[in-house]
Amino acid sequence: MEAVTLKLQTGDKRPLYEQIYRYFIGEMESGRLKEGEKLPSKRALCAALGVSQSTVETAYGMLTAEGYLRAVPKSGYYVSAALARSVPAGELRPPAGAEDLPPQPPRFDFSTGAVDTSLFPYASWARISREVISRDPQLLQRGEAEGDRSFRETLTVFLREYRGVRCEADQIVVGAGIEYLLSVVVRLLPEKAVYAVEDPGYGALHRVLSSHGRSICPIPLDDEGMDEAALRRSGANVACVTPSHQFPMGVTMPVGRRSRLLYWAEEAEDRYLIEDDYDSEFRYASRPIPAMQGMDGGGKVIYVGTFSRSVAPGIRVAYLVLPRSLIGRYREIFGYGASTVSRFEQQTLRLFIQRGLYSRHLRRSVNLYRKKQERLLEELRALPGAETRGTEAGLHFLLTVPGKDEKWLAARAAQADIPLRGLSAYCLGKPPLLGTVVVGFAGLKTEEIPAAARALTEAFTE
Amino acid sequence: MEAVTLKLQTGDKRPLYEQIYRYFIGEMESGRLKEGEKLPSKRALCAALGVSQSTVETAYGMLTAEGYLRAVPKSGYYVSAALARSVPAGELRPPAGAEDLPPQPPRFDFSTGAVDTSLFPYASWARISREVISRDPQLLQRGEAEGDRSFRETLTVFLREYRGVRCEADQIVVGAGIEYLLSVVVRLLPEKAVYAVEDPGYGALHRVLSSHGRSICPIPLDDEGMDEAALRRSGANVACVTPSHQFPMGVTMPVGRRSRLLYWAEEAEDRYLIEDDYDSEFRYASRPIPAMQGMDGGGKVIYVGTFSRSVAPGIRVAYLVLPRSLIGRYREIFGYGASTVSRFEQQTLRLFIQRGLYSRHLRRSVNLYRKKQERLLEELRALPGAETRGTEAGLHFLLTVPGKDEKWLAARAAQADIPLRGLSAYCLGKPPLLGTVVVGFAGLKTEEIPAAARALTEAFTE
Repeated sequence: MEAVTLKLQTGDKRPLYEQIYRYFIGEMESGRLKEGEKLPSKRALCAALGVSQSTVETAYGMLTAEGYLRAVPKSGYYVSAALARSVPAGELRPPAGAEDLPPQPPRFDFSTGAVDTSLFPYASWARISREVISRDPQLLQRGEAEGDRSFRETLTVFLREYRGVRCEADQIVVGAGIEYLLSVVVRLLPEKAVYAVEDPGYGALHRVLSSHGRSICPIPLDDEGMDEAALRRSGANVACVTPSHQFPMGVTMPVGRRSRLLYWAEEAEDRYLIEDDYDSEFRYASRPIPAMQGMDGGGKVIYVGTFSRSVAPGIRVAYLVLPRSLIGRYREIFGYGASTVSRFEQQTLRLFIQRGLYSRHLRRSVNLYRKKQERLLEELRALPGAETRGTEAGLHFLLTVPGKDEKWLAARAAQADIPLRGLSAYCLGKPPLLGTVVVGFAGLKTEEIPAAARALTEAFTE
Repeated sequence: MEAVTLKLQTGDKRPLYEQIYRYFIGEMESGRLKEGEKLPSKRALCAALGVSQSTVETAYGMLTAEGYLRAVPKSGYYVSAALARSVPAGELRPPAGAEDLPPQPPRFDFSTGAVDTSLFPYASWARISREVISRDPQLLQRGEAEGDRSFRETLTVFLREYRGVRCEADQIVVGAGIEYLLSVVVRLLPEKAVYAVEDPGYGALHRVLSSHGRSICPIPLDDEGMDEAALRRSGANVACVTPSHQFPMGVTMPVGRRSRLLYWAEEAEDRYLIEDDYDSEFRYASRPIPAMQGMDGGGKVIYVGTFSRSVAPGIRVAYLVLPRSLIGRYREIFGYGASTVSRFEQQTLRLFIQRGLYSRHLRRSVNLYRKKQERLLEELRALPGAETRGTEAGLHFLLTVPGKDEKWLAARAAQADIPLRGLSAYCLGKPPLLGTVVVGFAGLKTEEIPAAARALTEAFTE
């Protein structure tokens, strides 16, 4: 690019890094800085502007985290292709462009959706797959819309044993991921339904609801999960909750609150609870807590679960347990179609469960993730004043660094090539905790945990 | 197990296979037949009961399909572990409604969505699957929302070569079936969009649109496909067409009509064409006709295709080619999610295509289906006055029996255990042809075609 014409304003109240950040966004929006162009090196820019290296690093880190720039190791920073091409000036959506980049593994993977790939039973999965492929030619034909009956039968037993879910095979719908299944649920419920969602909460739910034009009421959480009084005031008739392990806060909803939500749902015919049980398998201090669905006597709970965390996110198998009252509507809309999950994979997973391989795999996974979490928490004690929350369960926790801004934390981490999201990325309203980032640990390799914790600690220390 | 104490009742109105089926369920419920126990061989049971082999096969088939039994190749049938454990006596849901019944293969499979399973390359598919499973642990992690980039790159080449589709990898979205992908498209287009659909047409499209609350205008067809004048009068702004091979009429849209539809779409910014290219690979009299997408200079065509017919419906892989103008909206709604297709299967299919196995498989398939169609048409000449239409392409055709009512035809076929649908099952308005049923032939075994044709001819003769 041509010379940097930025003049830092001492009278400007904004921090220096933000001035630099905004300057480059302006250059991109105006087209002066084009797709693929290289930015000045950090060192050169420090010298030109007379600021510290960390100021420039923070600015570049923010631009990278938000997808404006692409960091090429040992080369420098480049204007992201996607953004330069598609985004009209002023309309920039933050991390949109990031997806256009070929997925490069980050230095340390603190994302919330990863798993430890060393756990996966490659040999037995491959063996069962081969067996399934050559076993029954009928598996090539179109299967039942709700998933193969034999797989659903296995799931009813599985769900009762592992989650206390009580259902029969005809209530189950197998589908390609929770996000897809939520879009199925939305089409089963009346268009006028108003959805109460946890705030902070699972972003995909929000996107599914709004892309279907549904009304959303964000409900703040207290230390038991969705605040029931706020739910009542909201006028919503469908409450979407993660009772086993609130995402991302990590709270487990106590049984009293669960009962009160069930009472609330039973008060009117059009009320439902959507229970998202996404990672309930992983509890470290106690046994898994049975699902709310098992307490439901009134057919009010729509239960959603997935094998993404317990087997692998790359294999797309999730399931829905419908109350009997919604089965007819399901068949009307979806009954003529085919399942969204390959029958080979349904049958592979069925045999994997039936032969006891799943339970062994899960036991190993829980043990490994417990150890990893313990180790990471131990290492993070080096970060003065840092607090962690939601460590009793799941594959992520919250890390709060008092006195720091979460944007600053995320930018500093991005500079160190560690993608991290602040809590507000999961919020519709104000984040309930300041200076907080969401830290996943399943994707970190055990042996790299000390180095990863050190890198994070260094990034967060001025 | 101990001796089979079943006595078949001649006074019992239930078919023999059902008596056998219920007997074994009773034995399992009462606990007399336990988890893992082996059942008598089919041959032994035939001899003991004095019934035909097919009666026992039907009963064992039902029990296996419903998950009660597990068939172990070259060994026999065993009581399924999961069920023996799970099913408390008396709580079993009887297979009450037709919908609850496991999908039983009909006597002759004239359905439009089946494939010939003898074509499937079991060995190479299993070999590539195993290779993929053990190749790259990163495949276990969450993949890109629109599908793995490497697979999309392969698809761009594939689509150019096979279908004349011109696109880049970032326009492609891989998804679990055309029906799913249509529901994605509906959410990309404005809520107010009005959809023109072919009448007769693809039922799933209609269900997707109405379950999203979208407005639908059925447009009658002429002998070139969707009637353009009627489309203009309708006020619709999205036209959904099957130009390569209209479903179910079998018409191929000539290039003049294609151009006029493209002109229509270019006249207004909010107009789009959805091109469903579901079975374009199969043409018997000529080479496949390139997709309309390849003629589109204005970014007006949303292209949808699938591997359901050319590989197998049980493997759920379809794809969407978006015009550039819709990519941003796609990323906004779906960009943060994961693909609905397992990465193992994306990669297996990618290698299957890249190594030339797909093209070989397709050549063999086209040849076999051509022969089957010829044979079936020849045999159906025995039906006096019968006319066939739409035989130039695809895996189905129309069969008209003049002077007969299609309801009567379908009922007579059903009596002979041959499920068939009348043309009006695909119509929103009146069917354009009377006395017409839709006949698929891909799922018929080659050797059973004469018998199947004879059964149909007999059913249709009073």
